[in-house]
Amino acid sequence: MDPRLKAFFEPESVAVIGASRNPRKIGHIIVSQMIKAGFRGKLFPVNPKATEISGLKAYPSILDVPEEVDLAIISIPARFTVQVVEQCGKKGVKAVVVVSGGFSETGNERLERDLVREARKWGIRLMGPNCMGVYSPSSNVDMLFTPDDVLPRAPEGNVAVLSQSGSLAAGLMTMLAKQEVGVSRFISYGNAADVNEADLLEYLAQDEESKVIALYIEGLREGRRFMEVAREISTQKPVVVMKGGWGKAGMRAVKSHTGSLAGNKEVYDAALKQCGAIKVQTLEEFVDVCMCLASQPPAQGKRVGIITNGGGYGVISVDFLEDKGLEIPSLPKELEEELTKELPPFYTIGNPLDLTGSCTAEQYRVATKAMLDSDGIDCVMVIALMSAPMVNPPRLIDYLIELGRSRKKPLIVISLEATEEITKELRRLKLAGIPYYTDPARGARAIVALTRFGEVRRR
Amino acid sequence: MDPRLKAFFEPESVAVIGASRNPRKIGHIIVSQMIKAGFRGKLFPVNPKATEISGLKAYPSILDVPEEVDLAIISIPARFTVQVVEQCGKKGVKAVVVVSGGFSETGNERLERDLVREARKWGIRLMGPNCMGVYSPSSNVDMLFTPDDVLPRAPEGNVAVLSQSGSLAAGLMTMLAKQEVGVSRFISYGNAADVNEADLLEYLAQDEESKVIALYIEGLREGRRFMEVAREISTQKPVVVMKGGWGKAGMRAVKSHTGSLAGNKEVYDAALKQCGAIKVQTLEEFVDVCMCLASQPPAQGKRVGIITNGGGYGVISVDFLEDKGLEIPSLPKELEEELTKELPPFYTIGNPLDLTGSCTAEQYRVATKAMLDSDGIDCVMVIALMSAPMVNPPRLIDYLIELGRSRKKPLIVISLEATEEITKELRRLKLAGIPYYTDPARGARAIVALTRFGEVRRR
Repeated sequence: MDPRLKAFFEPESVAVIGASRNPRKIGHIIVSQMIKAGFRGKLFPVNPKATEISGLKAYPSILDVPEEVDLAIISIPARFTVQVVEQCGKKGVKAVVVVSGGFSETGNERLERDLVREARKWGIRLMGPNCMGVYSPSSNVDMLFTPDDVLPRAPEGNVAVLSQSGSLAAGLMTMLAKQEVGVSRFISYGNAADVNEADLLEYLAQDEESKVIALYIEGLREGRRFMEVAREISTQKPVVVMKGGWGKAGMRAVKSHTGSLAGNKEVYDAALKQCGAIKVQTLEEFVDVCMCLASQPPAQGKRVGIITNGGGYGVISVDFLEDKGLEIPSLPKELEEELTKELPPFYTIGNPLDLTGSCTAEQYRVATKAMLDSDGIDCVMVIALMSAPMVNPPRLIDYLIELGRSRKKPLIVISLEATEEITKELRRLKLAGIPYYTDPARGARAIVALTRFGEVRRR
Repeated sequence: MDPRLKAFFEPESVAVIGASRNPRKIGHIIVSQMIKAGFRGKLFPVNPKATEISGLKAYPSILDVPEEVDLAIISIPARFTVQVVEQCGKKGVKAVVVVSGGFSETGNERLERDLVREARKWGIRLMGPNCMGVYSPSSNVDMLFTPDDVLPRAPEGNVAVLSQSGSLAAGLMTMLAKQEVGVSRFISYGNAADVNEADLLEYLAQDEESKVIALYIEGLREGRRFMEVAREISTQKPVVVMKGGWGKAGMRAVKSHTGSLAGNKEVYDAALKQCGAIKVQTLEEFVDVCMCLASQPPAQGKRVGIITNGGGYGVISVDFLEDKGLEIPSLPKELEEELTKELPPFYTIGNPLDLTGSCTAEQYRVATKAMLDSDGIDCVMVIALMSAPMVNPPRLIDYLIELGRSRKKPLIVISLEATEEITKELRRLKLAGIPYYTDPARGARAIVALTRFGEVRRR
């Protein structure tokens, strides 16, 4: 791992080149977001025409900054970037983020090559160009140039998110924030002219803040190296990948978007599978899967136990799980006997276990505990429709939190945000690290990811 | 169509047999929900031990009710239902809903047969048993026995929803309410011992309140008749079907759930396709598809035009649409020329049309109008990430509402509920009949449904 990469995530001093006094300019927003994020290091706005920006002393050029600079964030017209990187080199900057667009993604390959050559000449690692850069809540770094009042940030957590595409980065951030999925490092790395997926994976492999690594990729600059790094890391930390641009028209769209070749779907699928990645298809699945991998242990096998208080929900959950290659085994004899003893005689003891519309929070506790304790079950899906009359939502949530605490095997919940009270209780469940999904199909995809990670780990 | 079915949806007088003074009892909730829904006809609680329930005079038996009764809702222990249906027969009741469980779904096939025999003897149509019955906001009928403070109701609208399963009915209702998808008739018909899917389809075919018909089914009582009715109706009104219980374990689960045979997946798929149904896979898709079919016209072809302000979003949208068999054609020459003339020179004019992060509401208007007007495009997907700095959300939404008003071809929007202001604007869009989805994959499925309905109509 290249130690210079640390400067992107935990810099001690940052210069913003192209800082602006105009609050609508990117160069202004970056400075103000860094301040808002509570950045603890030194922050140096650079602008030849200003003496002060957002209350900080501004410098005409980076060479005028009187102290050492770890990281420079560059937001100036593309044609000036090469000479500014040269100045960064002279200054001894370790890493630069080039936010500016106007490079290979608009056909300007040559300028991009010049930019990289200049950075390498000085031993600088370069992120971008054409990117948003980094949001790293634990180190109070936030250089995303869309202000957090229009693009709310995800809370601090353990999921590292990488996206080539800036718009998808923004979209994912919105979705992660809404679902309150915590992130460690959030990286929009754009054209990947220098720092690419393989570099970032290597860094995140040893990054203690990051337990889950999730990427949106279109093309890969160093495919082979990426796959090698991914194969190594994926047994330790789950690597979630969403690949964009696999159709005919999709490849055309990628070409004009990030200027990289999208490659054949089958080739990518096979390679990603081989290197232990967990493939997701949609943005919703991306976030759903990150949420469960961040908090739940991997599944040691494919046998799912389902507890429900709605027969139809049991039926469709079985459909989704089976369709994804999971098993819904008959209950082991001891488990069946235990449940028969503990539950009312008119319940049909099976898998799914239908507690019926008249069940109570206590019966959920009995059933969930028995399934979690059983050797015949690898993962428990609890479907809890809390509009049912006898379910006491706060008590049920208490029980589930208590039972889920051991993290012996995955426990995920399917429920509906039917009322404000129920939504509040479900949020409590989620914040305790037990994910819930409002559609069994989404829950099934989350279980697939936990099972896949279990398989990869056992390699 | 059997004219007696009308009594389920537009009764002039209703008796609730098993009405209770205990507010936790189903028989109480039905009465109070009917009152709360503002039922305009006569309402007669029947209970041998009460003289008044919820402010209404109660009668010892239905035979004591002094006026005519169109519909009786029966919520008493299963073993008493047959004799109560006999009383309904003597009273001249047209239709009964048997809410009570304890029939074929618990192995009590014989009692169910007796119940149906009794109803038929008197010329009564029977819904259920083991069901929640009907919610019909336009006629102020609401017999769903989960109170609306824990199970919020969907608003009045034009989607008829049918579900065998009570828990899925409740789940779908929650989701429809949350998404504000309006329903005409919402029917949980349980075991379908007498009134089944085919009967209800026939009724809804001629029901002017219902423009879209959406069903969750596990098994079908009269498969052939259902398919015939569906084939006839599906060219006029879209018929959306989600089929539960198609896996091995799924069929086991269905058997113990509604007591009907689930049947082979391939057989169902082929039959549903042939009769023009629009198949959906998940609950989320069920609601998403209902929402767009309720408000948008069918697509006249498969050619989708995509407008975006995020390149990555364009890329993945193309993936999803192509994967579902839709086309993202190159733009027709006139359209390309028009857009080239109207938009800034540095925009790449293509499909997807990438308006970039610096686009304005006005540019969205120009692009959307041009695509809607073009003969080369059958359906327009507008991806609008409104956190982008130059987009004015209220203005953009005004433009989209105005352009969508003609309903010449489908217009659907992909956007994110990034802030409260944006969410409010998006809600305005939705209430104006232009659906939006927070994930392009969900939008793609909605477009598939509009395309499928277009194909079926052209038959």
